[in-house]
Amino acid sequence: MTVPISIKWHAEKLAILNQQKLPTEIHYLTLETIEDVYDAIVTLKVRGAPAIGITAAYGLAFGANRHKTANLKEFYQLLQEDSRYLAGTRPTAVNLFWALERLMKAVKNANTVNHAKTILIEEAKRIHEEDEATCRLIGEYGLELLKTAQNVMTICNAGSIATAKYGTALAPFHLGAERGKQFCVFACETRPVLQGSRLTVWELQQSGVDATLITDSMAAHTIQSKQIEAIIVGADRIAANGDTANKIGTLGLAILANAFDIPFYVAAPSSTFDLTIASGTEIPIEERKAEEVTHLGDIRIAPENTKVFNPAFDVTPAKYITAIITEKGILYPNYQENIKSLIGSQIGVKIGL
Amino acid sequence: MTVPISIKWHAEKLAILNQQKLPTEIHYLTLETIEDVYDAIVTLKVRGAPAIGITAAYGLAFGANRHKTANLKEFYQLLQEDSRYLAGTRPTAVNLFWALERLMKAVKNANTVNHAKTILIEEAKRIHEEDEATCRLIGEYGLELLKTAQNVMTICNAGSIATAKYGTALAPFHLGAERGKQFCVFACETRPVLQGSRLTVWELQQSGVDATLITDSMAAHTIQSKQIEAIIVGADRIAANGDTANKIGTLGLAILANAFDIPFYVAAPSSTFDLTIASGTEIPIEERKAEEVTHLGDIRIAPENTKVFNPAFDVTPAKYITAIITEKGILYPNYQENIKSLIGSQIGVKIGL
Repeated sequence: MTVPISIKWHAEKLAILNQQKLPTEIHYLTLETIEDVYDAIVTLKVRGAPAIGITAAYGLAFGANRHKTANLKEFYQLLQEDSRYLAGTRPTAVNLFWALERLMKAVKNANTVNHAKTILIEEAKRIHEEDEATCRLIGEYGLELLKTAQNVMTICNAGSIATAKYGTALAPFHLGAERGKQFCVFACETRPVLQGSRLTVWELQQSGVDATLITDSMAAHTIQSKQIEAIIVGADRIAANGDTANKIGTLGLAILANAFDIPFYVAAPSSTFDLTIASGTEIPIEERKAEEVTHLGDIRIAPENTKVFNPAFDVTPAKYITAIITEKGILYPNYQENIKSLIGSQIGVKIGL
Repeated sequence: MTVPISIKWHAEKLAILNQQKLPTEIHYLTLETIEDVYDAIVTLKVRGAPAIGITAAYGLAFGANRHKTANLKEFYQLLQEDSRYLAGTRPTAVNLFWALERLMKAVKNANTVNHAKTILIEEAKRIHEEDEATCRLIGEYGLELLKTAQNVMTICNAGSIATAKYGTALAPFHLGAERGKQFCVFACETRPVLQGSRLTVWELQQSGVDATLITDSMAAHTIQSKQIEAIIVGADRIAANGDTANKIGTLGLAILANAFDIPFYVAAPSSTFDLTIASGTEIPIEERKAEEVTHLGDIRIAPENTKVFNPAFDVTPAKYITAIITEKGILYPNYQENIKSLIGSQIGVKIGL
């Protein structure tokens, strides 16, 4: 029983667990160029807000290595372009922009282009390492909140394989398993991409956590009939007022938690906060292609010429969120004030256009 | 552009549209024996509460024809066994039991076994014919309620192919299309069996209704971002207090309608009411096999040994229902009283064990 890892840095190369092949195949893909990284993010081979940030950071370092110029100013310009290129992969998760900005900021101290290249790769590795520590802390705080709970529901995969290790929403379950506290986790399958069935159930099985799969449509009935005591989810971007963008379906769960009077928790590192936006209405929602809904693999499951609406995320208003679990502590309402005082130092994110 | 029909009686045989093959194949299956009917219902080749009732009625008539005895008492006993056999197909939809009971009651007037056999087939045909008229009336009342609405959401397929014709929840859209009123219907795909994507989108396309497919998890965000003005669903069983069993996912939609302050309508014939039960807690909820959730066709979409909870229905408390549309008129709260006075003559249903 061991917590699975999806991003490995070894011998100047990045190995990522290809999440499109799970659960039928456990296959690590080697990424060596910025284009490899771009493709892996766009095609969801790597996914999860923190994991996207880590991978993009390595991607920017890969990109830097291919620039031949010794002129620092010119190098910065090329790097700026690379950064914009990677920022164009996915619009909603803010950790992507946060990681790119962190590298762009770190590289400002370089004396030479070679120095800059070293700084970039070191900073990417630091983001990678820090994320594991961050997730472990989130897990500790989450365990505290879920102290008396056994039956917990989640959606998507805010798990170990969406981060460096442990995950965010799933971190309490992994830590719990390590310490003999058994949760019964009800995983929503998370249509259309099925991160819940393909990834979360698989990941929880790996570390010996009791997991039950349901379709997203079963959430309300399951909360009622299986005595669900809490819902915990990850986040792709959290606005200054606490409004939270996360995988499509999260908003519905938050409304259900409210209706059934059970707590609704968001678990996310401080890099998920975007204090440059006042509320969730400013978060861009990625719309993905119709085939994700009309096909499963090669099987067509809807008629030809079906019109589809396929938003990948939704925004949960802060009023439905009982607490936000970060590595810096647990945030409760009033979020506006409490986010400012706990996360206030978070850099503004400007790349996300 | 024409409303599709799923049950056809011709030359003493029943032809049903095999709904497991839709939307890729339009294939009518011939049913000639009670076993054919049993299999078609259990395997969801025919589905939808009213269509199940109609098909089961023909099934009982088929069953009767194979009994050689001329002794009426003995015949009744065999028929009773046949009725229990068909009642064992699916536990939740009450129209099944209602139709079987109606035949068992009608046959009481028979003088001979041959007379009884004639009565059975005539009564089955009558149930079939009446259902079309019933659905048309539901459509008329539904159109009235949706007079000012354009964007409407639905789940599952409470459609023409779930009934004799027109459907229940979808009847207003078909009638609207015939008269030039265009709705924009948002169809939840309805996991795990995908009646929304496979059946509803296809059916609405056939009669020229504008349909957009979403996954069930997108309902909350879609209500918000596409200005959904009402939700309308069918029903499998309605208790004396208005609590309504319907396809899994319905309860979640009702809670969303409540949270977003839009009306939530249930459309069902009076044969869907079960006045022998006081509230929804007494409605048995069918649980189906795990493979419906873990596989899609032959594709495995969850890891091996995945634990699954697969309830096929949920119960929406009456408090979330704005109105119930029947062929006898529109019911509003207080349901307890209003159901009694409008539907009160409904026979008690005793077969459903």
